[in-house]
Amino acid sequence: MKMMIINIFFILSLVSSISFASVQDFCVADPSGPQGPSGFSCKNPDQVTANDFAFSGLAKAGNTSNMIKTAVTTGFVPAFSGVNGLGISVVRLDLAAGGVVPLHIHRGASEVLIVIEGTIRGGFISSDNKVYLKTLQKGEVIVFPQGLLHFALNNGTGPALAFAALGSSNPGVQLVPSALFASDLPSELVEATTFLSREEIKRLKRVFGGSN
Amino acid sequence: MKMMIINIFFILSLVSSISFASVQDFCVADPSGPQGPSGFSCKNPDQVTANDFAFSGLAKAGNTSNMIKTAVTTGFVPAFSGVNGLGISVVRLDLAAGGVVPLHIHRGASEVLIVIEGTIRGGFISSDNKVYLKTLQKGEVIVFPQGLLHFALNNGTGPALAFAALGSSNPGVQLVPSALFASDLPSELVEATTFLSREEIKRLKRVFGGSN
Amino acid sequence: MKMMIINIFFILSLVSSISFASVQDFCVADPSGPQGPSGFSCKNPDQVTANDFAFSGLAKAGNTSNMIKTAVTTGFVPAFSGVNGLGISVVRLDLAAGGVVPLHIHRGASEVLIVIEGTIRGGFISSDNKVYLKTLQKGEVIVFPQGLLHFALNNGTGPALAFAALGSSNPGVQLVPSALFASDLPSELVEATTFLSREEIKRLKRVFGGSN
Amino acid sequence: MKMMIINIFFILSLVSSISFASVQDFCVADPSGPQGPSGFSCKNPDQVTANDFAFSGLAKAGNTSNMIKTAVTTGFVPAFSGVNGLGISVVRLDLAAGGVVPLHIHRGASEVLIVIEGTIRGGFISSDNKVYLKTLQKGEVIVFPQGLLHFALNNGTGPALAFAALGSSNPGVQLVPSALFASDLPSELVEATTFLSREEIKRLKRVFGGSN
Amino acid sequence: MKMMIINIFFILSLVSSISFASVQDFCVADPSGPQGPSGFSCKNPDQVTANDFAFSGLAKAGNTSNMIKTAVTTGFVPAFSGVNGLGISVVRLDLAAGGVVPLHIHRGASEVLIVIEGTIRGGFISSDNKVYLKTLQKGEVIVFPQGLLHFALNNGTGPALAFAALGSSNPGVQLVPSALFASDLPSELVEATTFLSREEIKRLKRVFGGSN
Amino acid sequence: MKMMIINIFFILSLVSSISFASVQDFCVADPSGPQGPSGFSCKNPDQVTANDFAFSGLAKAGNTSNMIKTAVTTGFVPAFSGVNGLGISVVRLDLAAGGVVPLHIHRGASEVLIVIEGTIRGGFISSDNKVYLKTLQKGEVIVFPQGLLHFALNNGTGPALAFAALGSSNPGVQLVPSALFASDLPSELVEATTFLSREEIKRLKRVFGGSN
Repeated sequence: MKMMIINIFFILSLVSSISFASVQDFCVADPSGPQGPSGFSCKNPDQVTANDFAFSGLAKAGNTSNMIKTAVTTGFVPAFSGVNGLGISVVRLDLAAGGVVPLHIHRGASEVLIVIEGTIRGGFISSDNKVYLKTLQKGEVIVFPQGLLHFALNNGTGPALAFAALGSSNPGVQLVPSALFASDLPSELVEATTFLSREEIKRLKRVFGGSN
Repeated sequence: MKMMIINIFFILSLVSSISFASVQDFCVADPSGPQGPSGFSCKNPDQVTANDFAFSGLAKAGNTSNMIKTAVTTGFVPAFSGVNGLGISVVRLDLAAGGVVPLHIHRGASEVLIVIEGTIRGGFISSDNKVYLKTLQKGEVIVFPQGLLHFALNNGTGPALAFAALGSSNPGVQLVPSALFASDLPSELVEATTFLSREEIKRLKRVFGGSN
Repeated sequence: MKMMIINIFFILSLVSSISFASVQDFCVADPSGPQGPSGFSCKNPDQVTANDFAFSGLAKAGNTSNMIKTAVTTGFVPAFSGVNGLGISVVRLDLAAGGVVPLHIHRGASEVLIVIEGTIRGGFISSDNKVYLKTLQKGEVIVFPQGLLHFALNNGTGPALAFAALGSSNPGVQLVPSALFASDLPSELVEATTFLSREEIKRLKRVFGGSN
Repeated sequence: MKMMIINIFFILSLVSSISFASVQDFCVADPSGPQGPSGFSCKNPDQVTANDFAFSGLAKAGNTSNMIKTAVTTGFVPAFSGVNGLGISVVRLDLAAGGVVPLHIHRGASEVLIVIEGTIRGGFISSDNKVYLKTLQKGEVIVFPQGLLHFALNNGTGPALAFAALGSSNPGVQLVPSALFASDLPSELVEATTFLSREEIKRLKRVFGGSN
Repeated sequence: MKMMIINIFFILSLVSSISFASVQDFCVADPSGPQGPSGFSCKNPDQVTANDFAFSGLAKAGNTSNMIKTAVTTGFVPAFSGVNGLGISVVRLDLAAGGVVPLHIHRGASEVLIVIEGTIRGGFISSDNKVYLKTLQKGEVIVFPQGLLHFALNNGTGPALAFAALGSSNPGVQLVPSALFASDLPSELVEATTFLSREEIKRLKRVFGGSN
Repeated sequence: MKMMIINIFFILSLVSSISFASVQDFCVADPSGPQGPSGFSCKNPDQVTANDFAFSGLAKAGNTSNMIKTAVTTGFVPAFSGVNGLGISVVRLDLAAGGVVPLHIHRGASEVLIVIEGTIRGGFISSDNKVYLKTLQKGEVIVFPQGLLHFALNNGTGPALAFAALGSSNPGVQLVPSALFASDLPSELVEATTFLSREEIKRLKRVFGGSN
């Protein structure tokens, strides 16, 4: 009797049980295979374990001994291989007193930011130049709509901690100041396209290490 | 004159006619290539034939001599290689008198079920624990919304036959009883997360062949 | 004790249980409300019943006493209101001996066609003018990739029956002959864009009831 | 000169600045308007403020004095109106010692769970009945792929706190035990589709308040 | 005979011919109805004409007598009502000698820019601060990936004209300088999140008309 | 000081800067790798240059010395490798006086057509056989909804030029006359599925080079 039962369930689950070429419920990233527009190749499911779906890279506080007094640690694919193709990823933000996450954009996803410790001021700007600013306490959440300029600051006197999640396994992070001043975009093009003065650009290129 | 015409249409259709690297109208699954989040690699279109778009795996009735008196035969990718990337797949359900398709979920698609022979009772449960139950005769259809628990039973006295289609080439099938009782999920975790008694769990683990 | 349990599950399912403004698992079409690019407005879930997810419009054979000896009966939204937003729909095809489903396209979905009775020849043409033709017996399936010209014929001596499913609740059906000959597209434009002779166009406009 | 500049930027941002009928960067939920398959109607942007993008409903610990010793607080649309259409949402999980989030499914999104305090054991089961189990400490993350059965338990001796994010503003939460035992799904159907004994079903229907 | 034919095609096209509540091939924007996350409500198809699918707003050259010596004219929804829900839109760019389209982002689509007249230098910056710069002559095309900072300049001695298309009917346009300097984002926040000096910020706020 | 700053931005941009296995903002087509349902494999980003995002294949007028007096030149993937995965592509249309783009469909995208020179008459037919016809002058735009039959003609006395963009990197182009008359679809099937006379079909098969 038991044999018969196992047979029938074997039939029911056949598609996903035979081999690597069969149906999958997930697609853990295999960084050694080719990438496509929808993400990384899938790791052979026979070699997938629970560890592929866990990520401990956000467990330690980042080092905030730097100019922005902030550490941003990302849990995107392929570092967090299990999220490949699942439309979600995570980030840890450590902000010392006075810390700031500079003006940036995620090209591929909206973001929710949850304050765990301290006080964080988050804001974004819409296409018609309206500013949406909110000061958040522990346990409060803000959402930043996809592809809009936004930022966050430690608004309190002590350190702040937040986790954020984004609706893509590869949402991208483009920091406006490093795009302009840590790149080799010629200063005259920065000037022409931002209206900043040449001196200011040169000053910040020196600070951020950009050239041209 | 004819030459000229052929030339111009050659130009018009150039993109898809040159080589494997060109534009495709479809992506027949090549199970020997890498998989990605959106499906299998595409078979070289030069080797694609009409047979890749046809599937005869559902032509024979499944064997219903088993505990659930039911056979579920799937036409998912890669068994039905032509549906890869096309957002559709098919299933055949043979239910002997008293047959049942146990409680299950498709993680990736909604389903339409069409009764071909006999009488089938289909039902699903929504997030707020409402039950939607319908008895269907020959030619009638029911839709099961994506990711909700659902089931089907032969409600008549003779055999029943149905075909179902799902809005994904890889919709998944997760049977609740086999997930709980044919797996190695420890009995204490089954108990803690379902409120079933330990005895009932142990009894069903024996029936389904699960361990722990 | 029981009270307490109900309380906690009340909290867990709160979002979907309060009111029409709350989270929904489905969006049954309300044809009296506004439509948007993703489909019809949702019916108030308090008024949704199991009947909304069932469709009996395909239970009766269509009338094949016509020129194409075929009846095509669709189970699209809003006739089948439960499929709204679920990415799936159904069609019934009755083909008398010699019956044909003329050359057509579905702009919004791929299609699987399942032969229930008789013999059906299905075919489609790809962008590079290759023809994929397959004769199907009872229980066999063919897939037509989205947006490609395709057709079906009763290839046998008796009647044929098929059901088809499409990966959209509103896939569209555009018949090439009626687009050209039942419309008021001026004959000179039909001629210029198809290379058919003016006489042939005029003849078919008379047959199909087109003007100009 | 300044006038001229303002003019040109006025032209550049014209589309989003005129009126409610213009282009929007977001679609804050207006629960009083009609819902469609892609979400709620958009609130008039002139009335949107920063408060619409913030959510304080997760700031307070939930009450864990209940059978599962757990509180699940959701930040889905429309409670968190700003996430409407943005493909992201949040959840707070408070688990007292011994607390458990019962076996459940999200029909519409994958989930990342971040442990803030304590020790949490998370697990999911795949379609082929494999179990993926992981014990997570503070700061560690687990991802649950869309539509698969999963659960979480407080694995430690003290209370545990976690936040989770899901890749949909309306991901759904279907708890298996309440679907089966808090609903009016007839006991004989529960038995037939899950293989549980009638006595066990009756016992749990009494506990959860289900009928039939 | 003709009657019969018309009847059958009437049946075939029934779904889309009855009423406003029926299937649609398009969803022309009705700005007076509610908007949702996927776009505007659909205009009653009985009132839709060919004019809804045409747009003449880009036929005239924009006025380039302004600081950026450039006019950007958009053909987004709802100005171009026919593109609602169709995933495409258009833009006209007139650049006098020395004209520039300042640094900006489209949150919701990638863009192709086609040079019609003159010489245009287009560029974008990736997340890792690499710069992709290309000088384009008449008939040449550049693609800007979604959500990345990009810009364009008239690189020649005479006027330049380009058309661009974006893969969304509502892609958004966020200009970095106007977001920073035409908004009321407090100067100290601009300073903190961009590293620009307070003087430079104040200077540009005066130029662009921003406050705070 | 500078070192410290670079360090922190190095951390911020780490994900996209390490190696080929890291996060990408784009996925330039590598035609030598496997294709999947979402497009071509991604070229190693270290080898990507600005040239990959530019396309000069549309810069030269096509040769219109042919039967349709028209040249259609496509900028689809992989010819325009940079658009892979970005949901956009371009086409150039040169129409001599009397030129025509025959009746065709794009299976995978809607299209906007912008008239650059001359007068073009564009039209499409909807599922219910309504005709939408518009004569466009220089600078005017028409949109063709996805998957509907459409065409364009030079309506003026001189040559006409247009550019079109489509909302997919691989939208497909299926010409109705070449599908029917340049293919090997048997004449009896063409007759049965289009109602054209056998003589007309044979005549056009000879013109277009089709067989059977």
